[in-house]
Amino acid sequence: MSDVRDDQRQRILDPDSVAVVGASTDPQKRGHQAIVTLEEGGYEGDIYPVNPGAEEIRGRTVYDSVSAIPGPVDLALVVVPAPVVPGVLEDCADTDLAGAVVVAVGFGETGEEGEALERRIVDLAREHDVRLIGPNTSGMINVHEGLNLVGAENVPAGDIALLCQSGNLAIALFMEAMGVPGRGFSHYVGVGNESDLRFDEYLPFYAADDGTNAITLYVEGMSDGRAFLQRAREVTPDTPIVALKGGRSAVGKESTSSHTGSMAGDAAVADAVFEQAGVVSVERSDELLPTARALGSLPAADGENVAILADGGGHATLAADALAEQGLSVPDLTAETQERLREVLPDAASVVNPVDVAGGTDDDPSVFYDCAAAIAADPNVDALLLSGLFGGYGIRFSASLADPELDAAHDIAGLAAEHDLPVVVQSAYESAEPEAHAVLREQGIPVLESLEVATRSLGALATYGDHCARADRKSDFRLEPGAADDTTLDEVVDGDGDLSEHAAREALSRHDVPLSPSELATSADEATTAADRFEGPVAMKVVSPDIVHKSDVGGVALDVTDDPAGTYRDLVAAAHDHDPDATVEGVLVSPMRETGVELVVGVVEDEQFGHVAMVGVGGVFVEVLEDVAFRALPLTRADARDMLADLDAQELLDGARGTEPVDREALVDLLVAVSGFVEANPRVTELDLNPARASGSDVEALDAAMTVRPAGREESGDPAEQVSEESADD
Amino acid sequence: MSDVRDDQRQRILDPDSVAVVGASTDPQKRGHQAIVTLEEGGYEGDIYPVNPGAEEIRGRTVYDSVSAIPGPVDLALVVVPAPVVPGVLEDCADTDLAGAVVVAVGFGETGEEGEALERRIVDLAREHDVRLIGPNTSGMINVHEGLNLVGAENVPAGDIALLCQSGNLAIALFMEAMGVPGRGFSHYVGVGNESDLRFDEYLPFYAADDGTNAITLYVEGMSDGRAFLQRAREVTPDTPIVALKGGRSAVGKESTSSHTGSMAGDAAVADAVFEQAGVVSVERSDELLPTARALGSLPAADGENVAILADGGGHATLAADALAEQGLSVPDLTAETQERLREVLPDAASVVNPVDVAGGTDDDPSVFYDCAAAIAADPNVDALLLSGLFGGYGIRFSASLADPELDAAHDIAGLAAEHDLPVVVQSAYESAEPEAHAVLREQGIPVLESLEVATRSLGALATYGDHCARADRKSDFRLEPGAADDTTLDEVVDGDGDLSEHAAREALSRHDVPLSPSELATSADEATTAADRFEGPVAMKVVSPDIVHKSDVGGVALDVTDDPAGTYRDLVAAAHDHDPDATVEGVLVSPMRETGVELVVGVVEDEQFGHVAMVGVGGVFVEVLEDVAFRALPLTRADARDMLADLDAQELLDGARGTEPVDREALVDLLVAVSGFVEANPRVTELDLNPARASGSDVEALDAAMTVRPAGREESGDPAEQVSEESADD
Repeated sequence: MSDVRDDQRQRILDPDSVAVVGASTDPQKRGHQAIVTLEEGGYEGDIYPVNPGAEEIRGRTVYDSVSAIPGPVDLALVVVPAPVVPGVLEDCADTDLAGAVVVAVGFGETGEEGEALERRIVDLAREHDVRLIGPNTSGMINVHEGLNLVGAENVPAGDIALLCQSGNLAIALFMEAMGVPGRGFSHYVGVGNESDLRFDEYLPFYAADDGTNAITLYVEGMSDGRAFLQRAREVTPDTPIVALKGGRSAVGKESTSSHTGSMAGDAAVADAVFEQAGVVSVERSDELLPTARALGSLPAADGENVAILADGGGHATLAADALAEQGLSVPDLTAETQERLREVLPDAASVVNPVDVAGGTDDDPSVFYDCAAAIAADPNVDALLLSGLFGGYGIRFSASLADPELDAAHDIAGLAAEHDLPVVVQSAYESAEPEAHAVLREQGIPVLESLEVATRSLGALATYGDHCARADRKSDFRLEPGAADDTTLDEVVDGDGDLSEHAAREALSRHDVPLSPSELATSADEATTAADRFEGPVAMKVVSPDIVHKSDVGGVALDVTDDPAGTYRDLVAAAHDHDPDATVEGVLVSPMRETGVELVVGVVEDEQFGHVAMVGVGGVFVEVLEDVAFRALPLTRADARDMLADLDAQELLDGARGTEPVDREALVDLLVAVSGFVEANPRVTELDLNPARASGSDVEALDAAMTVRPAGREESGDPAEQVSEESADD
Repeated sequence: MSDVRDDQRQRILDPDSVAVVGASTDPQKRGHQAIVTLEEGGYEGDIYPVNPGAEEIRGRTVYDSVSAIPGPVDLALVVVPAPVVPGVLEDCADTDLAGAVVVAVGFGETGEEGEALERRIVDLAREHDVRLIGPNTSGMINVHEGLNLVGAENVPAGDIALLCQSGNLAIALFMEAMGVPGRGFSHYVGVGNESDLRFDEYLPFYAADDGTNAITLYVEGMSDGRAFLQRAREVTPDTPIVALKGGRSAVGKESTSSHTGSMAGDAAVADAVFEQAGVVSVERSDELLPTARALGSLPAADGENVAILADGGGHATLAADALAEQGLSVPDLTAETQERLREVLPDAASVVNPVDVAGGTDDDPSVFYDCAAAIAADPNVDALLLSGLFGGYGIRFSASLADPELDAAHDIAGLAAEHDLPVVVQSAYESAEPEAHAVLREQGIPVLESLEVATRSLGALATYGDHCARADRKSDFRLEPGAADDTTLDEVVDGDGDLSEHAAREALSRHDVPLSPSELATSADEATTAADRFEGPVAMKVVSPDIVHKSDVGGVALDVTDDPAGTYRDLVAAAHDHDPDATVEGVLVSPMRETGVELVVGVVEDEQFGHVAMVGVGGVFVEVLEDVAFRALPLTRADARDMLADLDAQELLDGARGTEPVDREALVDLLVAVSGFVEANPRVTELDLNPARASGSDVEALDAAMTVRPAGREESGDPAEQVSEESADD
């Protein structure tokens, strides 16, 4: 199915007319309640009840079918049971219906029979050019148009769009938003089984929608993650996207023989590729809305330096801790800023960062503004966190402080706008709803009770700002189809499955992937000759497409200094001991390397996102250390640098314990070469360079393992058809 | 100062009479407001205003001084400025005053002059047997007695005691508690500068207090962490303690030359020793109160197996994720349980764990009880999490569901009590305050809006349960003074500072710490003899008390196979090249070992908690891997096992990649031997066995470094005087 057309998407998400298929005279039925909800919500489009067995509902004419409706219909809400849905779609053959929201359960989520029914309705819909939301969806809502097809009452209006794979979670998020003045929704879609319209296909509408400033997702799995990345990358620089991934703990690791495959858990890959596309991931459900609120209403942060303005040592300390947890910095303020703060604060105050007013605002909370003004002018500061009791001075200390507090709120909001400075306020008095908080929120400044939620917002603002500044240097997630003409694999491998190390090396070397030198010896004599050619001790590894784990069968000898011929014979014998039928091509001889930093570089084909690259620390102990980074192919140099920066063991790359620092650009060369190789050879399903060794600018793979799928078979992870460039530009 | 006496502590924290020193006729002054607050709070004890310049305040006689008060006085609230405080205390020489709350700032927190003043008031207080809270404290509150010496209004009453090192954070916690029905405080103490009464000295009172079910701490630093551990260990099995540590991000790492020292950051050590003592640490300020609430009102969990009962797939999935994040398990339910669930739930429901009712409660929320009853009877289940919309059925779906929902709440609470099963409820309708939630809370079942806060509570219940079950096998934190007679150090080292490896080995071997064999060669010939004695290649290391980092100066040769004599001469020459004046005792010769698991075992003297042991993964790369575990000395075998269990790299110990599993009991032997050595030789300030090698049951240190303080100098970290056993029993 090609991507949804712009006009059709518009008619589905902002319809001028809605048919309710399965409309009912019974007020207890959803087919009745849906009409009531539309009426009470103030929906101004046309509403057409459809039910062959009724004549009038709430004074409206009921039609026998969608095709019987006289006027044009944009969207149908289909509330009939699953088995009846195909008939409804068949009836739409000659209508101009743009889309249908199929609420019924009993499709793909229930087993084989349901899957067949789901395929049938998707086929029918495609045949008749109707696009489906669902099935198994709670519905959709266009809040500002009063178009509520969910039946969830009291959805607070706001500027956040929500794409959600759980109806009850949506209800929970609506409830959460109700408790916070000024936070609400513009649109909601329950994507349901995502059998037709996909996550990515909704994004351009929200991006173009004036009423939407941020997009939130709850996603358990995507039917086409690659298309989502392409689309998200286009949208994020203008409209932030925040994603909560469900199923993080699921045993999502595919059955695989490679190190890379075993590390590529669902959530680890999703987090990484989302970040690559500019999508901000949150790990906690209670952070989704606050983070979206901050990203939707505040300017992105230009850097990671946050100033803390606190009215107590405890908040100052805890705020610094929580910011550090977000990877943010609490930099020194300039001497000038400190001097300005000294002028307005008492001696006991701390004017370094974190700033603690130490009672300096007790008699006059407008001093908060004076402090904020000094901080906002500081060139070292990218964002400001006001933490403590602000908003509570008029409540706790003296009612006479409410006015100066209100003034301070106004002035701080003005200051933030003037300096384009993201300001987040954490206040113990959030639940008391003082007017000062309302003023801040009106100006887009979030006020939060939880310090940790507040600092998470600041973390997101910095991540998002960093992405926006560098977005065009990152991958566009489009794999070049032209390069698929590469014949490397056809030449080096006969058929598919696991390649021998020798064949894998041959394929990689044609794409300039740096490998340690090696020679294939096919006899004991050749082994001696090969060993003599390299200085010092050599590694010898049996070469057989039938033996993947060479070490496990005694097929590897390291530090061979004398008698390579004897070693040759031993290795071949070990291989035949393990498997008498194994095809043994010979023994690979390569020089031993002094210890550098041992890495793993690999590629795996992710079920949702297609080919992703990995870099990890620790060679064979990569699974123990769990210090790995992922990015989707194709990698730009910026992506490769980001992968290296994602690793925990930065000291190792920087030259821990007196070792030579690793030349990161040489590692980037390796990663980009691997990316280019796989892009040109999409039949590769798994690739493992383990170990790859880095010592200064000397970077090379010491081993290579590769699995390929048969020629001509479609990739499992990448979409058959990519999002077209044309429709992506709207 | 010896520990506070029980009777004195009782009179301070639950006084029958209070003097307000610095009482004022001015209603704006704290010395006036304090009296108003006591009156309005319903405090029934005697109130004595003290001010030599006033005669009557609010109809009360004002006394010139505390000594002028006719009746007995338990506690004085001292609100006079810092310089006046000594005079107040001098006046108490002949009174029976038990304690004083010193509010003034301007003491140790301000510099040298303030420090002197603080020492002076502590000396005076000791002289006159008055114990001090503060100085620089916001005060204290005995909520149930109406004794509020803080001036914070609206402190909600409840069963949580709060010891806090930040007045404004206390206000924030009071505000947070106000928003949640049924959550509140029994006692509050702002510990201030902790110059006299310490954190630990308050604990026995709260433990004995019927109105207190949980103790919370906000702590930035403790003046005597070791005494706190001793006391906390005694208290925690009956009264849970939850601690929030401020300053986690501070550069708390002492300047040190050892690996162990460099890893012993403030927060890492505090978290570990708190866990050892049964104190539950939270890392987020928004988790402190909810965690305390759960621990104070629910039975501890017998294990880590949690059943999830959700009314939607999203909540079920996210709950499983969040529980996994807490290290908890979501086990399979028994066939019997699944069958019982099948009987009450629709076909679409999931009856494995997580249980998703899939609409089965929509018409009748009392089905929640049926499900909970089936789950509660399941022997695989240690705790239950109810997650989703419970409490909201009567609000969102139909008012007629409010009654069955209320019945379900009652029945679920009854069930929890009957089965002694911890139940935590997460509901999107928490903020709507439905009656069903009130019923649950009355029965001690927490209801939370945030799924992640709810699962944090379950994590704490499991951690706490595990501690309670094993508390008596863990350290009592009492270092045996008798063992200080050990003369090992005096015999092997002349003076103090860094020991040579040879001397360190000698000392350790006397305490059965397993070390690789070694011989000290004092000539090239002796080196040859020594090398011949060991089979295979040897390691040779120069021995000099003046050279700590032997590798850095070329003082180490590994894999020596031929010419040990020449190597001997090279090493000695390298040492003299580095430092012509270095005393070179010789060269240590020891056999090379095949690679096992490389660990670091060490001891460091923590500023707050005294001697703590560390075990870490990775030999010289321990700082890169950051996989370390700490416990305070003396270690029991259970403590040592916990340290090993704390490491991330469990697979490494269990035999990753085909290596032999490590015999954990052999490693425990090593750790306990190290603990015993340092306990007997408290002059040791740092000890590093790096690497220590473990391969199967073959465990030994391959290197040893040690620093000792001069004989006779008091330890910096351990308290001069330990909490007496006698007073600890109350």
